[in-house]
Amino acid sequence: MVFEGNYFSSATFDKADFTPDSLICVDQSGIIDRVVSASDSDYQIVKQAAMDNDILKQIPKGSYLLPGFTDLHIHAPQWPQAGLALDKPLNEWLNTYTFPLEAKFKDLQYAKKVYQSLIKELLANGTTTGLFFGSVHTDANLVLAKVCAKLGQRAFIGKVAMDNPDQTPDYYRDESSQVALEETETFILKMQALQEQTNADITSVITPRFVPSCTDETLQGLGDLAKKYDLPIQSHCSESIWEDHYATERFNLRDAEVLNKFGLLTDKSVMAHGTQLSDSDLDLFEKTQTAIAHCPISNAYFGNSVMRVHDAYQKNVKIGLGTDISGGFSPSIYRNMQQAIMSSQMLQDSSQKPARLSASNVFYLATIGGANALHINSGQIKAGFKADLQIVQDQYFELSSNNSDEIFERLVYHTNKENIKQVYVAGNLVHDNRGEK
Amino acid sequence: MVFEGNYFSSATFDKADFTPDSLICVDQSGIIDRVVSASDSDYQIVKQAAMDNDILKQIPKGSYLLPGFTDLHIHAPQWPQAGLALDKPLNEWLNTYTFPLEAKFKDLQYAKKVYQSLIKELLANGTTTGLFFGSVHTDANLVLAKVCAKLGQRAFIGKVAMDNPDQTPDYYRDESSQVALEETETFILKMQALQEQTNADITSVITPRFVPSCTDETLQGLGDLAKKYDLPIQSHCSESIWEDHYATERFNLRDAEVLNKFGLLTDKSVMAHGTQLSDSDLDLFEKTQTAIAHCPISNAYFGNSVMRVHDAYQKNVKIGLGTDISGGFSPSIYRNMQQAIMSSQMLQDSSQKPARLSASNVFYLATIGGANALHINSGQIKAGFKADLQIVQDQYFELSSNNSDEIFERLVYHTNKENIKQVYVAGNLVHDNRGEK
Repeated sequence: MVFEGNYFSSATFDKADFTPDSLICVDQSGIIDRVVSASDSDYQIVKQAAMDNDILKQIPKGSYLLPGFTDLHIHAPQWPQAGLALDKPLNEWLNTYTFPLEAKFKDLQYAKKVYQSLIKELLANGTTTGLFFGSVHTDANLVLAKVCAKLGQRAFIGKVAMDNPDQTPDYYRDESSQVALEETETFILKMQALQEQTNADITSVITPRFVPSCTDETLQGLGDLAKKYDLPIQSHCSESIWEDHYATERFNLRDAEVLNKFGLLTDKSVMAHGTQLSDSDLDLFEKTQTAIAHCPISNAYFGNSVMRVHDAYQKNVKIGLGTDISGGFSPSIYRNMQQAIMSSQMLQDSSQKPARLSASNVFYLATIGGANALHINSGQIKAGFKADLQIVQDQYFELSSNNSDEIFERLVYHTNKENIKQVYVAGNLVHDNRGEK
Repeated sequence: MVFEGNYFSSATFDKADFTPDSLICVDQSGIIDRVVSASDSDYQIVKQAAMDNDILKQIPKGSYLLPGFTDLHIHAPQWPQAGLALDKPLNEWLNTYTFPLEAKFKDLQYAKKVYQSLIKELLANGTTTGLFFGSVHTDANLVLAKVCAKLGQRAFIGKVAMDNPDQTPDYYRDESSQVALEETETFILKMQALQEQTNADITSVITPRFVPSCTDETLQGLGDLAKKYDLPIQSHCSESIWEDHYATERFNLRDAEVLNKFGLLTDKSVMAHGTQLSDSDLDLFEKTQTAIAHCPISNAYFGNSVMRVHDAYQKNVKIGLGTDISGGFSPSIYRNMQQAIMSSQMLQDSSQKPARLSASNVFYLATIGGANALHINSGQIKAGFKADLQIVQDQYFELSSNNSDEIFERLVYHTNKENIKQVYVAGNLVHDNRGEK
């Protein structure tokens, strides 16, 4: 396939490049094999060949090609309660709403219905790769993997491990550390089989819910499994003051140090939130090459403060964005880009230290930042990268001036689901919104 | 017309009432003259009569009738730059972007194009009443009034007065205090004529841009005009630390005290932002019955802190919501409800004082709060109130549990423009989105 049109892609943390009138050539395996600019001598030849083969896809005037987004933090089974009870304290939100909901995913029919809705919604919002917490249920997590395989989303999925009876309800936990670890390993092996069978881009992820919900044995065993199978790891780290205090009380260590002690901070780790990370925690993240999933909407509710993205970036800590469905109510990375900017402004006002993020900064996080955290060749429109793409309409194109910086900001600030016209994962069309209007 | 279906309407600040299976009867003048509940003895008779007269409008399953919203703060000429350059400091944002843009509205063709786009967008987002800052240009402001009259939005519109040469650019200001006041009075009289001619629901508003941009003579003259014509007043008050300092330096008074001294705080005044209002300022607002337009998205960029909505409400200060196009990027009151909740959480975290707002609280602000600020019988679904209504689809109706509290929160958190199916102002259909999908 060959896309013809204008595109935006991050050049650096501080700058998104606009490239007009290009041909983005995608090979059979879904990789961008060449980007031809209008000034290249063979532009017309390449275009004509694409037309002759009926593989030219022209982006309409006023629409733009952008890289697909990576969402680094999604609790898949919480999708039915997105936006519910967020004015409640965390404790009530978890015990009255969240745990009972997740427990329902033992029912595989229910899981299928919810997961189909969620994955369609994420794709419709331009999210081409998702990093998911599932539930404790191995089979329901496989349902999620199958849905992702079928609908074409690149997915990293974890069976949630949670076995600490002090911090989890009796109706929703792994029965023992042994069960938590065995089920995790079973899930890993079944995912391998499913991957081989479907050839889908699905990967299993070691997933301790967070330090409080796991026993020491489970934390250690999960660290060992991550090493044995060379797998990504996800959890929460220093999401709240409560979580920080819990680590100190139980281990006399910082939350990040606990995770590291059990082998859970690696260059394949993605830790959600980190609003309470200290400078030394950030240094540890940098040293271990652990990435942060910044979830600004969720953090407004449960984070107790704003994640210091600017500081983390300065310290060379890897960082991307997450929706945190359903601690965050919105399935849209656009919405989280917007909130990341707003929260950063508010942090700068309250801390009187540099914290401001620009539209270019957050676009980098949503694309390159997320892709780097998961070691995938995605998030850029460039030869050698996967053709994870979204075609986005600038709804105010007729109204305003159209220099590329202004278009870029309008896309970041005003793109709603209905403006995302098509979405591709590795060259495959996974969402088509053109016919609906 | 008779609407048949389920509706939500604020009962109190803390509670939105759900009423199922009702008939909302609207009379010829656009007033709700009766709400018939399913248990009323004549329910079937009223329904049958409406069907016989072909005036029954059935709300589909999974959709709900809500009151239309009031947006208490919109800079109409800034619409083309919504979302632009918000990472710039205020000074640069005003002088490089905002003032040059507003100056373009001398061109009435340009004004018409922009204002049509804006009013359509606001109606499509469920906003049935708008309180607008125009530009300095009397004729362009009349264009805005004509567009509102034609498209059917209830509008309160001010000719912006700004004549202080120290704080306004030479290419965009009233030439003198005399010109500012004469043009304001001309605008008032032409609006009266337009209102009589069209019978549209349009009102002129006394509009000093803010204290810094006006000379003493203009502030005093505007206060006198407000009294002479018994008109609403709008301006900004204590939006930022800079604005507060300016008032102290020039007058040795608080910003609110300056406005009051010139007769600009009355029970018809709506002051935008108020992020820096002190307790004594809030007392002055309560005493004068001045209302606040809370603009949470804008405040994240330019407010230097979060407006203390909870405190203002406790002190019986009137308060509603505003988008502050384009200090705020979004034309949606839904988005501002969501941000009001998030910002309130962040304020509570940072201040350690009660500040949290619930979905019910912000819905009250968007409906009753805004209507009370402007003394209009709107914002409630109740006999005697104007039929300012929106029909909103719960996009996740099939996925989740459907008790009314959960539906209400989903509507507050997930309603996008495409979910707003129809909008009515005083019984007139002003937006119809059913055919587009």
